[in-house]
This record gives sequence, structure tokens and C-alpha cells, in this order.
Amino acid sequence: MFDRNDLRGIIPPIATPLTPAEKVDVPGMRRLVSYLLEAGVHGVFVLGATGEFAYLRDRERVKAIEAAVEAVNGRVPVIAGISDIGTRQVIEHCRAAQKAGADFVACIPPYYSPLRQQWIYEHVRTIACETGVRLLLYNVPPVATAIDPETIARLAEIENVVGIKDSADIVHIQDVLFRTRARKLRLLVGQEYHLVAALMIGAHGGTPSPANIVPRIYVEMYEKCLSGKIEEAFGLQEASNRFVDVLDAMPSWTSTVKAALHLMGICGPTVAAPVPPLTAEETDLLRSHLRQQHIL
Amino acid sequence: MFDRNDLRGIIPPIATPLTPAEKVDVPGMRRLVSYLLEAGVHGVFVLGATGEFAYLRDRERVKAIEAAVEAVNGRVPVIAGISDIGTRQVIEHCRAAQKAGADFVACIPPYYSPLRQQWIYEHVRTIACETGVRLLLYNVPPVATAIDPETIARLAEIENVVGIKDSADIVHIQDVLFRTRARKLRLLVGQEYHLVAALMIGAHGGTPSPANIVPRIYVEMYEKCLSGKIEEAFGLQEASNRFVDVLDAMPSWTSTVKAALHLMGICGPTVAAPVPPLTAEETDLLRSHLRQQHIL
Amino acid sequence: MFDRNDLRGIIPPIATPLTPAEKVDVPGMRRLVSYLLEAGVHGVFVLGATGEFAYLRDRERVKAIEAAVEAVNGRVPVIAGISDIGTRQVIEHCRAAQKAGADFVACIPPYYSPLRQQWIYEHVRTIACETGVRLLLYNVPPVATAIDPETIARLAEIENVVGIKDSADIVHIQDVLFRTRARKLRLLVGQEYHLVAALMIGAHGGTPSPANIVPRIYVEMYEKCLSGKIEEAFGLQEASNRFVDVLDAMPSWTSTVKAALHLMGICGPTVAAPVPPLTAEETDLLRSHLRQQHIL
Amino acid sequence: MFDRNDLRGIIPPIATPLTPAEKVDVPGMRRLVSYLLEAGVHGVFVLGATGEFAYLRDRERVKAIEAAVEAVNGRVPVIAGISDIGTRQVIEHCRAAQKAGADFVACIPPYYSPLRQQWIYEHVRTIACETGVRLLLYNVPPVATAIDPETIARLAEIENVVGIKDSADIVHIQDVLFRTRARKLRLLVGQEYHLVAALMIGAHGGTPSPANIVPRIYVEMYEKCLSGKIEEAFGLQEASNRFVDVLDAMPSWTSTVKAALHLMGICGPTVAAPVPPLTAEETDLLRSHLRQQHIL
Repeated sequence: MFDRNDLRGIIPPIATPLTPAEKVDVPGMRRLVSYLLEAGVHGVFVLGATGEFAYLRDRERVKAIEAAVEAVNGRVPVIAGISDIGTRQVIEHCRAAQKAGADFVACIPPYYSPLRQQWIYEHVRTIACETGVRLLLYNVPPVATAIDPETIARLAEIENVVGIKDSADIVHIQDVLFRTRARKLRLLVGQEYHLVAALMIGAHGGTPSPANIVPRIYVEMYEKCLSGKIEEAFGLQEASNRFVDVLDAMPSWTSTVKAALHLMGICGPTVAAPVPPLTAEETDLLRSHLRQQHIL
Repeated sequence: MFDRNDLRGIIPPIATPLTPAEKVDVPGMRRLVSYLLEAGVHGVFVLGATGEFAYLRDRERVKAIEAAVEAVNGRVPVIAGISDIGTRQVIEHCRAAQKAGADFVACIPPYYSPLRQQWIYEHVRTIACETGVRLLLYNVPPVATAIDPETIARLAEIENVVGIKDSADIVHIQDVLFRTRARKLRLLVGQEYHLVAALMIGAHGGTPSPANIVPRIYVEMYEKCLSGKIEEAFGLQEASNRFVDVLDAMPSWTSTVKAALHLMGICGPTVAAPVPPLTAEETDLLRSHLRQQHIL
Repeated sequence: MFDRNDLRGIIPPIATPLTPAEKVDVPGMRRLVSYLLEAGVHGVFVLGATGEFAYLRDRERVKAIEAAVEAVNGRVPVIAGISDIGTRQVIEHCRAAQKAGADFVACIPPYYSPLRQQWIYEHVRTIACETGVRLLLYNVPPVATAIDPETIARLAEIENVVGIKDSADIVHIQDVLFRTRARKLRLLVGQEYHLVAALMIGAHGGTPSPANIVPRIYVEMYEKCLSGKIEEAFGLQEASNRFVDVLDAMPSWTSTVKAALHLMGICGPTVAAPVPPLTAEETDLLRSHLRQQHIL
Repeated sequence: MFDRNDLRGIIPPIATPLTPAEKVDVPGMRRLVSYLLEAGVHGVFVLGATGEFAYLRDRERVKAIEAAVEAVNGRVPVIAGISDIGTRQVIEHCRAAQKAGADFVACIPPYYSPLRQQWIYEHVRTIACETGVRLLLYNVPPVATAIDPETIARLAEIENVVGIKDSADIVHIQDVLFRTRARKLRLLVGQEYHLVAALMIGAHGGTPSPANIVPRIYVEMYEKCLSGKIEEAFGLQEASNRFVDVLDAMPSWTSTVKAALHLMGICGPTVAAPVPPLTAEETDLLRSHLRQQHIL
């Protein structure tokens, strides 16, 4: 059984392969997980933003976790996203994730309207205490209200709040590290653009979304940091940032990831409506970019 | 059977009375609907933002619509909110609402992340065409991406897109009216603060949330506008705006509405977590405000 | 001598004609003022945002006011913009404007960083009291911190605070009207898109920037409102809004106004750097739009 | 004569001591500069945001630069802020700064309304080329439009554009460093909260505003970074961040700095209106905080 010390390294927030009818494509999930584990990733985060959690019906959310857990088969930890808007909804997702075999769960603050810090505190505390699950906080402004470092520090006092995925900037990450060191909260960096800088100031790992496509570059970046080869790590950071710039210019991140995975033979290009798949023209642009980078 | 011409007058977005376990309180819903119909409202909008739609589990959403439909018993039109983030999720809510007897449905654009106008167009078109339901658009920036007047005009071309609840400003409302006049789209004003001004430029009615507490003042405001008594209408507008100012200063709108309904003997103060009910001190402030206004 | 009752009707915020060296083009200013007065405007607002106040050196600001005052020659009131960031700076602009013969002055809250309401109050109070000038407030969020209706009401208690140019939405305008009626504060509407609606709820006039190009349509709109021909007023509103949509799509409003005035033979196309003039291609688009509208 | 290689280390953006009549307090400036140079700062930045540049009349701006230059007396480089809104205004400030003896100048993009990147490019290029001054860019969103790393890289091609003060986040700083390495652009970090992290990824120095009060802690932080004592550097970072938190909770940063300098016997507490000085109660809080930190 994995514990908080296993929250380290590169843990990609994986796409959820979908059939044209928007059902979970289990063989696609298996291929994606295999591709990532072969590249050396240290964990898998299913049903994050890249996993389109907010767009999927409840039964597909459960199937996505089950498929990921089965494909991973205990080799690395599986973190399952359980985010929703009402506390009771989240608790239902949480129990389903636990039953499906997730090692950890993660949730963002309710994202429908702004919340006070105390409400976020009570939301997380209720979930953690009612379910006993090992939970990661997930800070992702402005999609959801930012969680203050003080609130995070208070939540880190709860035994089974074991980590945080922090998609805010370095000032926030650093402040969380300063305030939660004593509690050994594990911090995973959300934004891939500053991964090396965040690792250098003490983050334990990262959840770079482009790792769905190019997992190896992030695994190497992490290894270079671990072994003190900082200049080489920054070289990889620069190269990957320039690679991602082109993807970021596409109209939707999830469609772009799915289109790339489709070109790579891993799964179909379907994303959950109303987000559309890339057009043929956009896909052509993506194909030539991936070829230039020797990914195809 | 109601048609688009029945979308007029004051149609409050009703609170969803909840038991302490966050289940729909059916007798509470019945009392709330009675209170509003006796005050002369022209319709009922169940599962809008005031109805906490985003925080409720799917089965409670269905029960809320069923309870409202039963309580209204055909006397006025019932609009049911079916908003969610993925198109397939919304279609499931829509079919449930139709089955539960709603006369119209309404949905906001997916509110998890920003959307392009064409995605909103396809989202609504898919829902309207697959279900055949009589649909109202629901424009509520910045909770969800604003729907451009041009997109609204294109959507108004669809036979069963019959109206819009527009919570944007007068410039937007006016532009929608200019562009959809020919299609006879019905426009209900979302923000109660400019209700009279919006009616004067051609809006067909409004969905003032404070009408849960003081329905009669909005019904009178509408009647004064209809009969050309503009100065009196503005007098009511000013009085109600000042009344609402005090409620707006409370920490959460839905908690405040529920607390007021509780003090009025209509239902309990429970709101769906993580939003907390008013504290005892806040409730005291509210009570004295309602007494000053002769509501208690 | 004009008093607050003369703050009514259409008072365009006039462009500041510039030579290629960014000095005030006095003959250009004379032609612009003549064009507007012949169209029946009720006043002139020099050195507003359309007048590029923030980009001009102090001596050009003075010359712009002098040129406008001379050209108007007492036929209608002249309002001079005196906005700046520090209170002492504004007072210097104010004294220069008074010396140059302006009938009224107007200033926005300091626009460099957010201000508390009390700071805005003291800023305006100091200016009004030290100079004795007849002053208009100028509310233009988000360029500067929004002035709350309560603050405006407090400022309206000062004898020589006689009006406001309000570029906020109808809710704000209405609230200012509600709260300052007793003090007879004159309210001029900033946004041309909702001019008719604002006049209908009690605004005293407007400062439509497109009136630099098409003054007559706004003068007629105002006259139709005065004489109760509301449907015709809305017809003009719709037509002018559609006309302005095309201008709004250009890269800079001031460059577009200057380019139009250039095509109309009134002044040169120079705007103060770093804002560039329209390109030749953009100017061609504008020319054909103005021709379609029979302005050229 | 200093060149771009002298842009390194801790260069505080100094307060502008003012008399009660808002004139530059020359003896106060002398005391402030002495205090900082004795603490080992590597340069002085006069008329940045902390120096209230935007609130001062032109002649006081000149006097502030003259006073700083005289006080520094060639011992370290002096950077003078020349920011304004129109390009011609900035050029006038620039010539005055050169005449007053500044070694470098710095300007933020015009801050009155949003600018396109090409306009910022032309603005800076015009200033640099017309004056020949050694110029630092100054990126400070959201006060002014953010300068894209691509634009910065283009501007770094201009011979006399020698540096940048970057108050954006680490992702931006890193991207600027990646793109301007070859041109040897010097990068000074604006935000003191992430100074160590920024130095670790290659920034050349910083302009921490709290260094007006506690210069020594930032000088040590820089020295620890230079000598590879990273853990100690982070210890200082954490301590100083917690110290600054308390100052940040005060209503205005510049008033707080001035009040602290007043308590320390360096200059008076006057800030330029409309920003008010701290109240007596706020000053008491500040005094006890400074005492706890052994600054008083």
C-alpha cells in the first residue's frame, strides 16, 4: 500500500480515452497507462482537468478510475479526482473512488461560485473525516477559489490530508512549503512551465499535463533535478516549454491532447461535448509539430 | 399547455427547501409555492442559482422539479433548470425534467472553463434538437461565459428555443431585444436592481431572486410598468433595491434567502454544503431587517 | 454664465486635433467645434478619454482647453477634463482650466492604482474646496476605481460638485439618480450604447464619443426622448449602435475617431504615441463604412 | 561609468521623502540613501512605484533624481524611473533624468489603457533611440499591460536596452531569461517574495521594496545565494516574507514605508495625496511590529 512518501516524481494527469458515444474506452486507457509507465512515470492522476472530470457522467467517472486502477495494477500510486460542487456530491465520488481502488483522491474547491476560506476548510475536513481517505488538496485558481497557504496549513493538520497539487505560482508553492514542512505535506507542482524551479525550492514532484504526450522529458527533468544536474534540467525545461507553446495555441487543451494521442495510436480523438475535437486543419498542424519533435 | 407567450411577468427563481440531510423538503416546497402564487407571481423557476442546482445530487434535482410541478399544479408555467457542464449531462437532466412535468427548461453555458461562442451554440442546439424541449437560454456572466447577442440571435432561429433569462446589463439586454424581436424570443430579466428599466425597454418579465421573500413588491412593479405608472414603478424599484442591499451584505445569498424563509415559517434554513447557513448573529440582523420591513 | 442646469443634452467628449509633432492643432479644433455646434450639440467636453488627456504634455492640455473655449465662444458650456493621479497635479490642471475659461471641470479618480472610497472622497473634496470650481465627477471603471453611489451622494453635498459623467452601467446610474435627486446632481451618461434607456430613467444628457463623427443622430435621439417619441428614439439607438460596432472593432478608439475626422476634412489623423494611427488598410475599411452611412 | 554588468544585487526602489507640502525633502533623501548604502545595497532605484512617481509633479520628479544622485555620489548606480503615459512625456522625463545624472532609466508601459505588444515595442524603441539612454524595461502587470517575453527579446536587440525589472511571476522571469541570454539582458526581480527562487534560476538581482526598511536582510539573501548557501538563503526568505506579510496588511504600501522611515528617524510620513498617511492607530501597530523585529 502506498503512503504519502510515494507522492513524488512525475504523476501525469491522464486523459480519459472516450468512445464516440462518450463512454470510457477501456483498451485506450490501458494503452495510455502502459505508454506512461514504460516511460518511467511515478504515478497516475486520473480524472483531473485533463481527464475531463467535470464533463463526464457519474458512471463514466467510476469506469475511468476502475480502468486506470486495473491498468496500473499496483505498480505506481493512482490518484483519483473526486471534484464536484456540493460536499455531498464529492463524498459520493470519493466513496466510489475508494471502492474502485484508488490509492489517493484529490479535489479542487467547489468551482461554481467564490468561497470563503473557512468554507473550503470545512468542505475538505468533512470529506477527509467522513471517508478516512488519503486526500490531496488541489489548488487551481482561477478555475476555483484559491486556497490560502494558511488554510492549507490548517488542513495539513488533518492526519489523512497528505498532499497538494498546486497549480498556482512559485510564491504560493513556496509559502505552502514554508508552512507545511513540519506536517510533511507532499507538494506536486501543477504548472509544467516552472517545474524545475519548483523542484529546486522543495516541491516533491509534478503533474505535467503534456506528460500524456511526452512523459520521458519530464521524467528526465525530475531525475536531473534529483541528481543536481541543474543546467541540464533547465535545458529540458526550456525545450519542453517551447514544445508546449505550440500546443497551447490550439483552441482547447483537452482536444489537443486527445488529438495527439490519436495520432500516436493510443486512443480516439473524442472529447466530451461541448468541447469539440480539433478540426482536420488543426490536426494537420499538430501532426507536423509532433513530427518535428520526433514524437511521430 | 403553456407556450412562449406565457413567459411574462414575475417568475421567481425559487429556493429549494432542504431537510438537514440535504434532501428535498416537499412540504416546504409546497408552502413556498403557495406563498408565491398567492402573491400573484406569473410562473416559477425551479433549480436556478437560488435553487442551489449546482450543489444538489441528481436525484434531489429530480425531486425538486417534481415537488414544484406538483405544488404549482398547472396554474402557472414551471421552468426547470437543467444546467451542467457536459452536454450529455445536461441532456440527462433535461429528459428528467420533461418527465417530471416541467413546462420549460433553462440552462446556462457550461461553467467549468471558458467556451467559444460556437461551442455554446452547438451545446444548446444539440440539447434543443435531441430533446425537442421548449428551452430558455440563461446568460449569467461571469459565472459562465457570456453569450454574445449574435449567438443568441442565431439560437433564437431554432424553433424550440423560446426565451432567455438574461442576467447581464441593460446594454446586453437591449442588444438581445434588438436582434431577436423578429423571432419573438421572450426575455426575462435576471438582475432585480434594474427590472423597471429593462421592462421599459421591452423585456417581457423578470426572475427577481428576492421575490422568494417579497414577491408582492415585484408583482406590483410589473403591473405598474404594464399600466404606464412609471414613477410609481421607480418608487417600488428604489424601495426594493434598498431592501435588497441589506441582504446582499450577508455572506451568502442562498443562506440568506433560506434564513428568511425559515423566519417566515416556510422551510428550514439548511443550504447545501459547503455553503454554511447564516450564523445566529447574522440571523438576528436579518430578523430585525425583516421586521422593519413588516415582513415578519 | 452657465450653471448646473445647463448640463443637459448631448455634450460630446471631443477629440483633440494634433499636428504631426503632437501639438494642439488650433484650426482643427475650431473646425471640429463648428461641426458639432452646427449639429446642435448642447456643450463640449474637452480633454476626456477621447481627447487623449492622459497622453498630452501639460502645455498641450492647456492649449486644448484654450482652443476649445475660444472656438465655442460662449455659445454652449465647456467642460474641461483635469484628471491626473496626484491631488496636487489635478489642482494645477484645475487652475489652468479655470484660467483658460472652462465653465466646468471633470476628473476621474486617480487611475494608477486602486483607491479606497474615502480617498476618492478626500481627493475630490480637496479639489472642489481649494479651487471653488464647478466640478463634475467622472466614473469610468475599470479605467479608474469605481466610485460607489454612496460616495457620490456624499460628494454631491458639496456646493460646487454639480454633476457626474457616469460611464458605468444602468444599475449604477439609477442608483446615483436615486441617491442624488435631492441635491440636484446632473448626470451625463458615458456609454452611448444605452443612452436612450438612461435618459428614460432620468439621466440629464450624455457624452457619446461617436458624436464626434455623427453628432446629429445623438442630438435627435435626445430630442425624441424629450418629446416622448420613445419608439423613434430606440430606432435611432439601434441604428447608431450598429454603426458604432464597426468602429469598435478597430484597434484603437481614438485613432478611429481621428481617422474619421481626417476623412471628413476636419483635422489630421495624428494620435499621441504610443497609440498608432490607423493603417492604410484600416482607414480604407473605415472610409467604406462611413460612405455606406452617407457620412462621406 | 557604470555599465550593464553593474545591474546586479540588491537595488531598492527607494521612497521619495516629502515635506508636508509634497516637495522633495532633500535631507531626508540623503539620510535614506546613507542608510541603504551602509547596509551594502548595490544600487538605488529612484522614482519607482515605491517612489510615488505617478503622484509627483514634474519638478519634484526632477528634484528627487537630483537628490538621489547627489546623495549616492557615484558609489553605486542610480536607476531613475521615467514612466508616464504618452511617449513624448516619457522622453521629456528621460532627458531630465539624464541631465540630473542618472546612470540608467526605467519605464513601465503606459498604464492608462491596455496596449498591443507592438505599441509597447515602438514606445520603448522610440525612447531608447531618440535619447540614447541606457534603459531598463519594467514589467509590472496588472498595473500596466504585461510585456510578453517575445517583445522583451525583440527589445533586447536594441543596444541601449540593457535590463529589465520584472515584477511578474517566475514563469515569466524564466522565459525572459531563456529568450534574452544571448543578448545579456540584465534581469532584476521585482517581487521580493520569490527573490531567492528567481536568483536560483538566473536572475541578476532584485529590487525589493521592503529593503527601504530592512536592506541588510536582502543583501544577505543575495550574498548567500551567490555563495551557494541555499538553505540559509531560504531561511532569510521565509523570515522576510513573514515580516512583510504584516506590512502588506496595511491599507497602502507607500504610506507604510513612509511611516516606518519616520519611526526610524529618516524622513517624515507624508505621502502624496490622495493616498493618506497611516493613522495613529495603524502607526502604533507598525511600531510594535518593527520593535518585535528589533528594527526600532
